[in-house]
Amino acid sequence: MPYYIGDVIKEEKKLIARTPEKFRETGIDVRINTRVEEVDEKAGQVRLSDGTALPYDVLVLGTGTMPLTPGIPGEDLEGVFTLKSLSDALRIKARLRDLPVRKAIIVGAGFIGMEMSEAIRNLGIETQVFHRRTLPVNRWDPEFGKVILAELGRHEVGFVTDVETRAVEKGKEYRLRLITNRGEDEADLILMAVGVRPNAELARRMDLPLGKTGAIQVNFSQQTPREGVYAVGDCSESFHRISRRWVNIPLGDVANKQGRVAGWNIGGGNIIFPGIVGAQCFKVFDLEVAATGLDERGAAEAGFHPVSTLIWGNSIAGSMPGNKKLGLKLIADRATGKLLGAQAVGEMGAVSRINTLSAALWAGLTLDDAGWMDLAYAPPFGGSWDPIHIAAQTLRRQM
Amino acid sequence: MPYYIGDVIKEEKKLIARTPEKFRETGIDVRINTRVEEVDEKAGQVRLSDGTALPYDVLVLGTGTMPLTPGIPGEDLEGVFTLKSLSDALRIKARLRDLPVRKAIIVGAGFIGMEMSEAIRNLGIETQVFHRRTLPVNRWDPEFGKVILAELGRHEVGFVTDVETRAVEKGKEYRLRLITNRGEDEADLILMAVGVRPNAELARRMDLPLGKTGAIQVNFSQQTPREGVYAVGDCSESFHRISRRWVNIPLGDVANKQGRVAGWNIGGGNIIFPGIVGAQCFKVFDLEVAATGLDERGAAEAGFHPVSTLIWGNSIAGSMPGNKKLGLKLIADRATGKLLGAQAVGEMGAVSRINTLSAALWAGLTLDDAGWMDLAYAPPFGGSWDPIHIAAQTLRRQM
Repeated sequence: MPYYIGDVIKEEKKLIARTPEKFRETGIDVRINTRVEEVDEKAGQVRLSDGTALPYDVLVLGTGTMPLTPGIPGEDLEGVFTLKSLSDALRIKARLRDLPVRKAIIVGAGFIGMEMSEAIRNLGIETQVFHRRTLPVNRWDPEFGKVILAELGRHEVGFVTDVETRAVEKGKEYRLRLITNRGEDEADLILMAVGVRPNAELARRMDLPLGKTGAIQVNFSQQTPREGVYAVGDCSESFHRISRRWVNIPLGDVANKQGRVAGWNIGGGNIIFPGIVGAQCFKVFDLEVAATGLDERGAAEAGFHPVSTLIWGNSIAGSMPGNKKLGLKLIADRATGKLLGAQAVGEMGAVSRINTLSAALWAGLTLDDAGWMDLAYAPPFGGSWDPIHIAAQTLRRQM
Repeated sequence: MPYYIGDVIKEEKKLIARTPEKFRETGIDVRINTRVEEVDEKAGQVRLSDGTALPYDVLVLGTGTMPLTPGIPGEDLEGVFTLKSLSDALRIKARLRDLPVRKAIIVGAGFIGMEMSEAIRNLGIETQVFHRRTLPVNRWDPEFGKVILAELGRHEVGFVTDVETRAVEKGKEYRLRLITNRGEDEADLILMAVGVRPNAELARRMDLPLGKTGAIQVNFSQQTPREGVYAVGDCSESFHRISRRWVNIPLGDVANKQGRVAGWNIGGGNIIFPGIVGAQCFKVFDLEVAATGLDERGAAEAGFHPVSTLIWGNSIAGSMPGNKKLGLKLIADRATGKLLGAQAVGEMGAVSRINTLSAALWAGLTLDDAGWMDLAYAPPFGGSWDPIHIAAQTLRRQM
């Protein structure tokens, strides 16, 4: 059952409708369905799309991301969607409710593509994922990509590899037709899930400095170089504690933290956002998929000499029932033994291991730490040697 | 179904029977059902109970623990058990198989008592836990003790508080009768689960120094002060990285690690066992119960000035189905903000949080770290603010 999308929409719709009233009681003027067209810094005001202006003392840019599209003819046809905002989700849901959608094509196999393939397939709709590479989710090791591919197959989600999209047209048997280098395929719904970019349009027009990432540059207090102007969330950069570089990894939990830091500081506090380690996870059907830190390429780009190992172990003790198979990959620096990153895939326990390793990364721990670290052991929750220990000791011996 | 006990016994029986042969192939002489009565250090040999002697160059003491008993008349009657060794488990299982056991009494509400109450109750046997205190599992906050008590109640396990045992006798309606300060209660099986103590008998006779814990003193290489004599596992001490004291916390994963360290060093390697943080967990019916680090009392004893908070949050996002209620308690040092310990209880996600916090404790992180740490977020696995963040920020604000 597609409880996930459905419930989120229901809850957020209620929440959004209540938002302005709720805040009004506390003296805060929250305006929804309102677009800021321009910031007039000299006058200290923003100009709205209805022509009115609002004064400000402090300005916080939280403009998020824009969904990317392939940029092909017909991508704006009715029935072709991107999924970024709540209204995108509501539009997709309305289409699924109002039309008989017999078949869906998802373009892109990142985590949004994966989550949506589950949600749509679970409605009983024939679902295909079209991807420009041969395996889903580029961030993860190809061995894990194959496990995810098998999981899609197990749930009868088709996967078309090495795709270049060319155009979308009206279809014959189904409502739409997608033209690619691999031929022509029809569907009633096409979802373009090929990524996002920071929405820094207002910032650019204000001449605020953007990073190489295209996102707004901030300091650890979430301030831009312009006095009284803050930026938070997906439109801004974060400090990556492992690569020691400023990055843009648009994720809801990071945005929440940055928002709190900015708010606290604007309110007279003095706290910092201490950065990220790149922890991330998603669920696709029965599989937990999680990663943290850097992969080998990212590690090499950051000046490390990465070594890695990938092991298969049990997420819980071998004597317990259930599918316990857990794949864990560790990446470390050959010179220092410092842990640089981790990836995990399995029906249980993958996210748990990645969070433990995220804490280890946060603290700058080494393979020697990870190999002997004290973790809570009981057969229903792990083996006496956790996959973390096994992978860390395996990699340590290779060095 | 009591898959847990049953499968472990089946598997270990097979394993044990195969052990000597298996090792013989590798040139290692493993003797089972063999008791070392005395160590003759001058002669460099051990004397076995069958009167023969075996020479050694290096001696490793891995003598484990002895189960405690209340020391009351009748505690050695047939049908009264302790649970420490595999043969204890096999004897209990045989009794359950061979007799109609209609009712069982478990004396003690530590984690062995809790695990066994689940295992026995799941066989359909009327089960009561008799405990000397008012709440189970002393290590955990009383608020969590109450949750565990409710879980026992939900599964119709009786709980008798403030018990002092006096004697065991033959029963009338059932096979045995337990006499306590609370009256007389009958049952077909009585399990004494009142704890264990290090079995340091051989070490004591060798005049090896024991710690205040009663366990064998070792260094970080698992060596005793006597050349060529090592000690590992439940009979030895471990360095607690948070209290900075040598402790005896008998757990299988710690024993495994210490054994590996000793073996490596005896084989010519040079590695250390870097200590523990006191991570521990168990399952009782549908509840995960986990803890790490110190509680307030332990923290105060170690010279810290503990402060704590206990919050109730969601183990996964509010929009997801299932019982998500998760209790998390954090203990920190008022002077430094350093994290000192954590406890968690819930139907899901408790062990996962405790392992993440164990890594944080291992690394010596503070509440500021724990409050902003980057964890993998997706609704099926957590909220955008994890209970760890919420508890750490709550406690931080109190300081």
